[in-house]
Amino acid sequence: MNYGLIAGNGRFPFLVLNGARAQGVSLAVAAIKEETDATIEQHAALVEWISVGHLGKLIKFFQRHQVTQVIMAGQVKHVQIFSLNALPDWRMAKMLARLPRRNTDALIGAVADELAREGITLIDSTTFLQDHLARAGVLTKRAPNKHELADIEYGLHVANELARLDLGQTIVVKNQAVVALEAMEGTDATIRRAAELVRNRPLTVIKVAKPNQDMRFDVPVIGLQTLDTLKACHVTAMSLTADKTLIFDRAEVLAGLNQAKVSLVAR
Amino acid sequence: MNYGLIAGNGRFPFLVLNGARAQGVSLAVAAIKEETDATIEQHAALVEWISVGHLGKLIKFFQRHQVTQVIMAGQVKHVQIFSLNALPDWRMAKMLARLPRRNTDALIGAVADELAREGITLIDSTTFLQDHLARAGVLTKRAPNKHELADIEYGLHVANELARLDLGQTIVVKNQAVVALEAMEGTDATIRRAAELVRNRPLTVIKVAKPNQDMRFDVPVIGLQTLDTLKACHVTAMSLTADKTLIFDRAEVLAGLNQAKVSLVAR
Repeated sequence: MNYGLIAGNGRFPFLVLNGARAQGVSLAVAAIKEETDATIEQHAALVEWISVGHLGKLIKFFQRHQVTQVIMAGQVKHVQIFSLNALPDWRMAKMLARLPRRNTDALIGAVADELAREGITLIDSTTFLQDHLARAGVLTKRAPNKHELADIEYGLHVANELARLDLGQTIVVKNQAVVALEAMEGTDATIRRAAELVRNRPLTVIKVAKPNQDMRFDVPVIGLQTLDTLKACHVTAMSLTADKTLIFDRAEVLAGLNQAKVSLVAR
Repeated sequence: MNYGLIAGNGRFPFLVLNGARAQGVSLAVAAIKEETDATIEQHAALVEWISVGHLGKLIKFFQRHQVTQVIMAGQVKHVQIFSLNALPDWRMAKMLARLPRRNTDALIGAVADELAREGITLIDSTTFLQDHLARAGVLTKRAPNKHELADIEYGLHVANELARLDLGQTIVVKNQAVVALEAMEGTDATIRRAAELVRNRPLTVIKVAKPNQDMRFDVPVIGLQTLDTLKACHVTAMSLTADKTLIFDRAEVLAGLNQAKVSLVAR
């Protein structure tokens, strides 16, 4: 059984390569011309550069290397798929024409279907990153205090409703009142807005996976950038969904949170 | 039966005074020292200035003038209630001590209960503003087009869920995807954020009342400031909750929307 990787932007694909290597697995990497960091060539033995709309070429690459299991890691900006730099090939164009809606879930689902027809299965993107998943419990030295726990309980209720509606994944709470709700602006912008609104008084952040989170893509992630935002915005506690959230640079993130006395829990 | 007005900030109390006068009703006005515009004295025959925490004084003022029906209009900032400038009097302090939670609804509800004990009823804040309520239908020359209608249908579903959870009242939609959700930042900031995120491409805004909107306070309002924001942010359509949303400066707002070819509907 051979594994492949469709590498989008950011560090996610690099971490997958490292995780696989640690288990003695090497991956056939399809790097996306418009997205993937060029240094990926130094981290993988087998890399082919493929433009974002070239689905036929992608399938042929994996078939050539007998790949049957593929991981998708790192963002591919939605807008790229319809850009002039990346005109779709015949196979992609046919697939797009059949799509009733062109949102991210529909697009990735359709790509997964095309791959499946050729005997290539899209698998859990955390397959080689099980060590990076947040396991249930208090992850920092400090546990949430009574007030933070009350905010987390209330926030989880609200965040789960939002995630169920497939809106945002992050909410910011103070004194059991919601200060900010995420939609398209992303986690960091949501936290920064909340900090401005309460003039840098302490906040609690709740970030959740979707109720039926598809682990093949769009898995929630926190990392060093999240750490910086939490510290800058006077967040004192954060809650994640256990077993469904990745923590990149875990040791540094947890050390930074401990130093700033921020409490991180997964539940 | 005598009517009274508890006047908060902004133009809302002035419009209530005008509306009442048009019906031959004069109001005993309790102006809030920390909030009410000083020019209110030129618009009402009977004004008493009362500090925000002085509930006992408020009750005595209304009793002295045989007021049995009271309207609350205009915001009283939550933070004022606990500020040093407005230490609560004995009656307010006793009421606050009994409160399990101090959110806006709980506070106003408790004030309403105290008034009721003295035979003073808090009534619908739109009692003298029935002409200002948005009635069901298309309010502008242009009706929403097919795409805007699809965004409104989707947006109403989401906005009603948010309002049911007592979070925000406004959402901004593009191509049936939610761009921004309001929490504490207010309607205008939510719309401006959405415009930045989509780089000023056309947007649809949905603003709703709560499912069980208490018409005694916190009734949704749009006005000239909303008009400016909609135009500046390339909003092409907006939906309001019929019979539960006030439109201040209605003629000017509708003329401005018509000129900018923005469609406004209430449903």
